[in-house]
Formats: sequence, structure tokens, C-alpha cells
Amino acid sequence: MSHTEALSRYIGHFVDQLFKSGVRDVVISPGSRSTPLSLAFAEYDRFQITVDIDERSASYFALGIVKQTNNPVVLVCSSGTAVANYFPAIIEAYQARVPLIVLTADRPHELRSVGAPQAIDQIKIFGDYVKSFHEMAMPEMNENMLQYARNHADRAVRTSLYQVKGPVHLNFPFREPLIPDFRLEGVWGDDTAYVQHFQSDETRLSPQVLANIEQQLQNKKRGVIVCGPHDYPALGAAILSLAKKWQLPVLADPLSSMRVVADEGVIVETYDSILKSKQVRSQINIDFIIRFGAMPVSKPVLQLLQENEIEQFIIDEDVTFRNPAIKQAHYMYGKPTNIANQLADLSLTFDEDWLATWQQMNHAAKAVLNREQQVLTEGLAVRGIQHAIPDESTLFVGNSMPIRDVDTFWLATAKKITIHANRGANGIDGIISTALGMAKNGNHVTLLIGDISFLHSMNGLLLTKNYPLNVTIVLINNQGGGIFSFLPQAKEDNPHYEMLFGTPQSISFEKVAVLYDFPYTAVKEWSTYLDALKASYEKKGVSLIEVQTDRQENVEWHQQNWQEIEQSVLAILR
Amino acid sequence: MSHTEALSRYIGHFVDQLFKSGVRDVVISPGSRSTPLSLAFAEYDRFQITVDIDERSASYFALGIVKQTNNPVVLVCSSGTAVANYFPAIIEAYQARVPLIVLTADRPHELRSVGAPQAIDQIKIFGDYVKSFHEMAMPEMNENMLQYARNHADRAVRTSLYQVKGPVHLNFPFREPLIPDFRLEGVWGDDTAYVQHFQSDETRLSPQVLANIEQQLQNKKRGVIVCGPHDYPALGAAILSLAKKWQLPVLADPLSSMRVVADEGVIVETYDSILKSKQVRSQINIDFIIRFGAMPVSKPVLQLLQENEIEQFIIDEDVTFRNPAIKQAHYMYGKPTNIANQLADLSLTFDEDWLATWQQMNHAAKAVLNREQQVLTEGLAVRGIQHAIPDESTLFVGNSMPIRDVDTFWLATAKKITIHANRGANGIDGIISTALGMAKNGNHVTLLIGDISFLHSMNGLLLTKNYPLNVTIVLINNQGGGIFSFLPQAKEDNPHYEMLFGTPQSISFEKVAVLYDFPYTAVKEWSTYLDALKASYEKKGVSLIEVQTDRQENVEWHQQNWQEIEQSVLAILR
Repeated sequence: MSHTEALSRYIGHFVDQLFKSGVRDVVISPGSRSTPLSLAFAEYDRFQITVDIDERSASYFALGIVKQTNNPVVLVCSSGTAVANYFPAIIEAYQARVPLIVLTADRPHELRSVGAPQAIDQIKIFGDYVKSFHEMAMPEMNENMLQYARNHADRAVRTSLYQVKGPVHLNFPFREPLIPDFRLEGVWGDDTAYVQHFQSDETRLSPQVLANIEQQLQNKKRGVIVCGPHDYPALGAAILSLAKKWQLPVLADPLSSMRVVADEGVIVETYDSILKSKQVRSQINIDFIIRFGAMPVSKPVLQLLQENEIEQFIIDEDVTFRNPAIKQAHYMYGKPTNIANQLADLSLTFDEDWLATWQQMNHAAKAVLNREQQVLTEGLAVRGIQHAIPDESTLFVGNSMPIRDVDTFWLATAKKITIHANRGANGIDGIISTALGMAKNGNHVTLLIGDISFLHSMNGLLLTKNYPLNVTIVLINNQGGGIFSFLPQAKEDNPHYEMLFGTPQSISFEKVAVLYDFPYTAVKEWSTYLDALKASYEKKGVSLIEVQTDRQENVEWHQQNWQEIEQSVLAILR
Repeated sequence: MSHTEALSRYIGHFVDQLFKSGVRDVVISPGSRSTPLSLAFAEYDRFQITVDIDERSASYFALGIVKQTNNPVVLVCSSGTAVANYFPAIIEAYQARVPLIVLTADRPHELRSVGAPQAIDQIKIFGDYVKSFHEMAMPEMNENMLQYARNHADRAVRTSLYQVKGPVHLNFPFREPLIPDFRLEGVWGDDTAYVQHFQSDETRLSPQVLANIEQQLQNKKRGVIVCGPHDYPALGAAILSLAKKWQLPVLADPLSSMRVVADEGVIVETYDSILKSKQVRSQINIDFIIRFGAMPVSKPVLQLLQENEIEQFIIDEDVTFRNPAIKQAHYMYGKPTNIANQLADLSLTFDEDWLATWQQMNHAAKAVLNREQQVLTEGLAVRGIQHAIPDESTLFVGNSMPIRDVDTFWLATAKKITIHANRGANGIDGIISTALGMAKNGNHVTLLIGDISFLHSMNGLLLTKNYPLNVTIVLINNQGGGIFSFLPQAKEDNPHYEMLFGTPQSISFEKVAVLYDFPYTAVKEWSTYLDALKASYEKKGVSLIEVQTDRQENVEWHQQNWQEIEQSVLAILR
């Protein structure tokens, strides 16, 4: 009994503190060793619990919940390879700064490294991909150890949130018997026990530093603000003010939250198409760039930085060196929103015609990108979503081609659509589960995904059988790895292309829909596509819309239009 | 051109050496950064290449090929989270001693930790779960570096095979452009360039040590030989000789390769049922145990060791302490087959009636386990496979309940069936892909798997669309995690049982078969079950046979029969 009582109180206090520190969602994968944790979360009765048998899917689902709620989510799994299945999502969470609290059950010390079943070495198993690791002590019930459990619950939450966000890992050794007894009096601890954190979020640049920056920018004429992916709620508005004040264009990544303002004058959303031309990049003559957020999706932006001597100012919370161009750069550290506001207060003016030039280029590119078409291309698939998607809903975008298509074709709009993607490590894995996680709270999510990525994370669809999730899946089926068609691997004399890169998978997505029991529509034309989208938004649950495109046709369409944009832009620059 | 030439020659020499060092199978997951490796393996034209878009599945598939061929297999993937998807299979390979050669492509050093796309820190990413890690140098083409590439290819193969087998990891930084040119003269190096390894496998005990062991065993009367999972081809026969010489029973795990001899007199295959009774364990009075291989599947064997003072001699290749009973033990290091032969040469005799007692107990248990039944239980599912499976074919067994059912119901038989399972970490993940890997060379594999495990690794079935794999899948569908029904979690007052442990998944396996395009049969009776098995063995490709059982009925059946066996065994011991 004393074993059971210690186990129950120790875990009871731990779980109680997680709730008090703000955790609301728990994603559990079934297992025996993790029984004390799983039962505690269920018994506590105030957590929202999702159960997913596949830990890989479960961890991406948790990541999706965080992306939607901006609140740390707890993951629970058993010992053994179950733990290792979390690894891809943990890497994504670390690099994309997503707060996850990973709780893994483990054999007790005496059963490690002796050939006991399902025992693996879980100490620091995620290496440098968690912000902190702690091997929890064996359950004990003296006051000291109950407070220790509470402290580490709270600490896990705080560490996942500050300084930059990210995953943390706690490993719990448990001895048998594993069943706690939560009917014990006071098992969750004192109801008023909680911890407060008094912390200032006001990291900002000092007046001296600002004066220095002001001086450096004074002689510059042609600046550009680049905003990549980020999750700061107020940063978009702050950058918009800064750009209007300075009259500088904002190259707004689709994940910058800044394509939600129509015709604000400073937003340039077609920069990827504009800068695709090497000639344009060499003639555009930019003096300096102010960069917020992670690197944008657009490869031409990277090439622009690599090919030219542009003074670059990179803003980030911490000492992180997000500078893949390998050029000299300057760094500003502090809360990006604060820094944007501080910069807007500087007395600076720049070249008067500069913004107008960008507006003209943007206008020219939009004219081409907005052109009417009959056959459904990947670009038109994006425009269809933008047309039909309900206001104030969420779009989740797969990696490889979909995010690039959204970058190109998602023009700034007054619709308040929140766009997300897994851009920490840009994997094609876990996409379905992440999108489903974003739909967990009942809101309608639209997922744009390619066929290979869909098949990679198909296991996630099991969740749709067990939980009410409203998701419109737009599947771009170009029969394999479409992105390689744009790369040198697609040279005509490559006899291994289809086997190694194209990798067409002869699976029927209609049958996938039958398996998981949701409606399916195949579309090849604009009007039927819009009808299918509309129908999906009028119902609950999952809908699968398969857009059948042709890899080669897609490449040709892109190339032809890029040439046209290049000509217009070069004419403007002359 | 010099970049491309260096890249081509460097990788050409590396790949050529892998072939010369014995590698034949390569499992590739598509990606851009890994292009030099993928194209080299394809161009070399003497490797058997499998392409799988899901790295988790690919790595388990590779593991299955090794289990079938006893030869190291190469894995190739791109940078980023792709790498992390290998982690579960690598842990399994490390703990089960399976030689895998993991080649991951990476960004060059200047693109690491600067926010470049798909760049993650891949240095030592698998931690202690690979036998060796090496960060390869950038491709260069001077003689020194070509020999370096060759040396590391050879070294990877050797390290994966000796002392104990396991996975190794080489990380390749590649700069763009990534397309090699294998038409260059001499790109693969000199055709006679190869490395020889002159190595003795004759590690054995010295005469002095043997004399010491002989002396220690001289006063013992009642010994038992336990053989757990292992992959030594000649060990089974050596232990059989030893046991016959010493007239001691062999408790032969289903993965010991020793249940293939019918009526040899020393094989006791029902020890799990015999030792399930605590009374039996306390009355059986064993003096000493000689253990070969990993710990057996049977939990009662562990309990026997924990509850009694039995002198234990554990034999293994290396200093590995496979002793989860946490009792004092003695260890013998050397090639297990050699040691078994050396022990057989000692002059020792033991209690004359001892083996007969075990034979009687085995006989009594078999009488109960072999009893005729109408309704298909999980035990009968195993007996059906044993009845119908073609001689000299392979059975792959899932973890959790299936391996326990095989332990109980797979009685020794003259049929030469090779039984395998993933018993390194005992995960329920990757089972389908591992079984498919064992079928890669065209032989027919039978897979026994539970429903949760099936759903966890279902992505592996994509391989069956692209490669001719002959597999009979016997799916035990007990609607969720059947093993928990045998654990304390199933107490009646646990209101969270179904959500957290039972986790029934309402998916139609018939629709899974439709999706992946292979025949499906649902069976509930012995005769239709046998017909379905027989039909599956008469055709090529995959067949899915769903055995629908009832969790509760299964528990009751087991408990009733164990009681009967207990009574018979106690009577024999009296």
C-alpha cells in the first residue's frame, strides 16, 4: 500500500501542478509502463485527452494542438521504441520553437541494460533536441519529494515557453505494481498550491544601441523588410506600422501572418516570382534588409542575399544566427515586436520612389498569377482554397511543393486566414497529424498536401475515426515527388528518375477515403473544384478532395509565367 | 566539373567498396540531398534496391532483409526529420544485434545551424544506439581521400558485424550541385581493389576456466538449459548435443531455433505453461541454469529466477549482463556455439530422474494445449499456422500477444520453420515492414500480428504495391490491446480502461485489403481458417486472414487451461 500511495500522491501532485501551470491538452499513446501517468491525467478530469496508438502521429498531433492554442501540450508514452517514434516531431518542435512536454515512462534503474523487455536507454535519448531533460526520481511521498514533483511539472511548462519555446523531456522510472489509487484523500495535493512567475517580456534594445542603428541606416536609400515564419501574435501589425512609417516594402512570407491585409500598399507578396530571375536580382539594387522571423520559404530571397552585397539586420529573441546566406550580417536581440516598434520610432526616411517600384512589380506579377485558367494547376488549387475557405479559419500547408505554391499564389487578402506549416525542419512527415491537431478544438482546418506526404503520414487518419475533427484535405496528386521536377535530378538522361525521385505510388485515394470513412471527390476543373470545397465547408468531419495534376504540365506552366513576370519586372526596373 | 568529378569518384569508390565488402541490399527513401548516394547505388547496377517513401517503414524493412539474409543492409535517406524516422528501427537493431549501415545525407557545414531548410544537427543523432558514428569528409578526389572513402565503407560493414552485430551510421555532407557523373572513366576505382579481413571466430573458454566450471557443476544434480532468442546458425544443434550428453531439459524459446526437432527427448517447449504456477515454481527445485541467447519471451522463467536461489550461468559473446532477474549470476564469454561444444566435453552427470520429470510435465501440458476446440482462439490460430505453413518457410511474429501465443502453442515439430520477431526492444512498431523485408527475396513469409500493431505499421503495406512480396498475414483482431486484458489495468473498477488500454479501433481490415489490393478472408472457425491459410500459400503476393477473437473469452480460455496444467504438473512433482 505504501508503494501505491507514494506512486499516487507523487504523480497526483505532478499532474495537478501541470494543470495549474496551464497545461490543458494531453496526448496519450497506450502502454503498460505509463499507466500511472495515463490514469492520473484521466482521473484528474480537467484535461482534454486524445489517445493515439501511433506515437509518431501522436506527437505531430500534439504539435498541431500547440500551433492552434499557443499553449504547451503534454505527450505521454510507454517505454521502448515508443519513445523513439516521437523523435521526428520533437526535432520539428525544437527547430520551429513549439512547446511540448514529453513524459516517457521507463523501467526502474535495476531493470535497465540487463535485457529486460521493452527497456532501452531513455536518458537524454532526444539529445540536443529538447531544451531540457530530467530523469525524475522514483515516486516517494514525503513532503520534499511531492514538492519536487510539483516543481518539475511547473519547471517543464516554463522551460517549454521561455526564452525561446521548445520541447522538454521528463523520464519517469516506475516499479510494478503500476496502478495508482486516486481515491486517496488529498492525492492531488492542496488545492491552492500553485507557483507564480513574475517575468518581464519587455526585452528590447537600449537607447544607445538604437542610436547606433539609426546612424547606420541614415545613409541608406533602398531598404526591404523581410518577414518569415513566426508565431508572435502582435508582430505582423508592428511590422506593418514600421513599413508604412518608413515607406519600405515588406516581403511577407505566407507564414508571416502578414498576407491578411489587402492593398495596404507596403505588402509585397509576389517577391518569390519577382526575384526568381537572376537578372532581376542583380538589377534590383537593395541597400539593406531588415529580417524578422525564420528564413522565408522563398529560395530566390536566399539567392538574392547570396549574390549581392546587401547589409542585413537579423532580428531574433535569442542568439540564433538564422543566416543561411553565409554573408556578414548584423543581429538585433530582443522581443521582435518590441524591436519593430522601437525601430518605427527612429527618424529615418528613404528613397521616395522605391516603394512605388515594388508596388509596380507586385502589380505586374499579380496580373500574371491571377490570370484565368481552365485546367486545374497547382497554383489554381491554391487560388480555389483562397476563394472558398471560410473567413477566420486555418490553412495548414504541407512541405515540398504545397508551401511553395502557397508562397506564389496566396495573394494578400482581407480574409483573416491563419496559415501554418511545419517549417522547423521542413519534413514531409507528420503533416496530416499536425493538421488534425490544429482542428482538435472544433474549428475547420483546410490542409493542402501532396500525395507522397499524404501517404507518409496517412496513419494519422486513424484519429479521424475516434475524434470529431473538421478538416478539408486538398490533395495535390501529381503522382509522386513533384518537387524533383524542378530540380536537376529531372534531367532527361536520368534513367533512375522515376524509381528514385518521381516514386509514383499507385494507390487509390478514393479507397483511402472509403477506409477511413469520409467523402471523396476527384476534380480536374475549376468549377467542380469550387463546388467540392464549398460542400466540404458546409459539413462536419473530414472531406478529401483530390486535385489531379500533371507534373510536367505544372513545370511548364510555372516556367512560362515566370518568364512573363521577368520581362515585366525588368521593364519596370529599367 | 572538378566538383562533379570529385563527388562522383568519392561516392563511386565508397559504393564500390560496400559491394566488395559484401553488401547486396540497399533500401532508399527518396530525397534531394541524398542524390549522390541514391544515383550511385542505382548506377552501380549490382545492388538490389528497394525504394520506400516512409523512412520508418524503410528501416524496419531493411532490418527484415538482414534477418532473412544474415547480411548487412544499407539504408539511404535525405537530411532532416527523414533521419529521425529511422530511430525506432535503429534502437531495435542495436538491441537485437542486427547489422545495418545507415547512410544519411546532410547539408555541408556552412549550412548547419543557420536556419537553412531541412538542416538539422545529424552528428551523433542516434546517440549510443549505433556501434559507431562517422562524419564523412567532404567529397575530394585525391588518392588519399578516395582510399579514405573506401576504408570507411569497408569499416562500416566490418563494424556492423563484429564483435556483436549492430547498426553503424555515416553522415555525408554534400554541396550542390548534387548530380554525379558516373560515365567518368574509372569512377568506381580499380576493379581489383578490395580489403581482406583475416579474423578468427574461435573465441572460446580456456582449459583452466573449463576445469573451474566443471568443478562447480560437479555437485549439482538438477540443471536446466535455457535457450532464448539468438541468430547463431549452429547454436541450436550444439545445445541439443550438450543437453543429450548431460541429459538435461532445454527450455527452448520460440526464437531459439530449437523447436524444430520433434520428440528429441530433451526439448521442453511448454515451460511457459508449466512455470506459470507459483506453486510449481517453488516446488520444482532447480540447482542451476545455463542460459544461451537473450532472455526468453516467457515471463514465468524470469519469475522462476527471481523467486528462487538458482545458480545461473549466462553465456554471451561480449560483456553484456543479460540478467534482468537481478540475482547473482556467473558469466561465460565467447562464441556461444563454441562454449556449448566445450561444455559438452566436460565429464559431468546429473540426477537420473530429472529429465524424465520434465518430459512428463511437458507431456501433460501438451495434452491440454493440443485439445480439440471449435471456436477459434488465439492459441488455435497459432496451431493453424503450424498445421498449414509450408515446410522450410519463415514465420514472423508480432510483439505483445502474438509472440506469447507462439511461445505457448508452437509445439516442437519436425517442420523446419524459422521463427523471427523483433525482440531487441519488443516494440509493436514496424512489424509489417520487418516481415515484408524477410519476404524480399521471394520466399513466403507468414506474419502473425495483432490489430493495434497492424495499424501502427500499416504504412509498410505500400511496399506490397511496388514489390512482389509473398506474405500470409494472420491478423488476430481482438479489438484493441489484448495484452492488457492479462494485466492489472483490466480491473473491473477502471472506468478509463477502454480509452487508455483497450483502445478498440473501429477500422475495417477488409477495406485495408481493398486499399492495398490483396485478398481478404475473415474467419471464426478452424476449418475455414485452414482453408484460408492453404489458399494463401498456393498463391503469390499478400493475403490477409482476419481471425476475429474475443479478448475476454481469450483470457478465460487461458486461465482455465493453466489451472488444469498446474494440477497435472503438481501431481507429477509430488
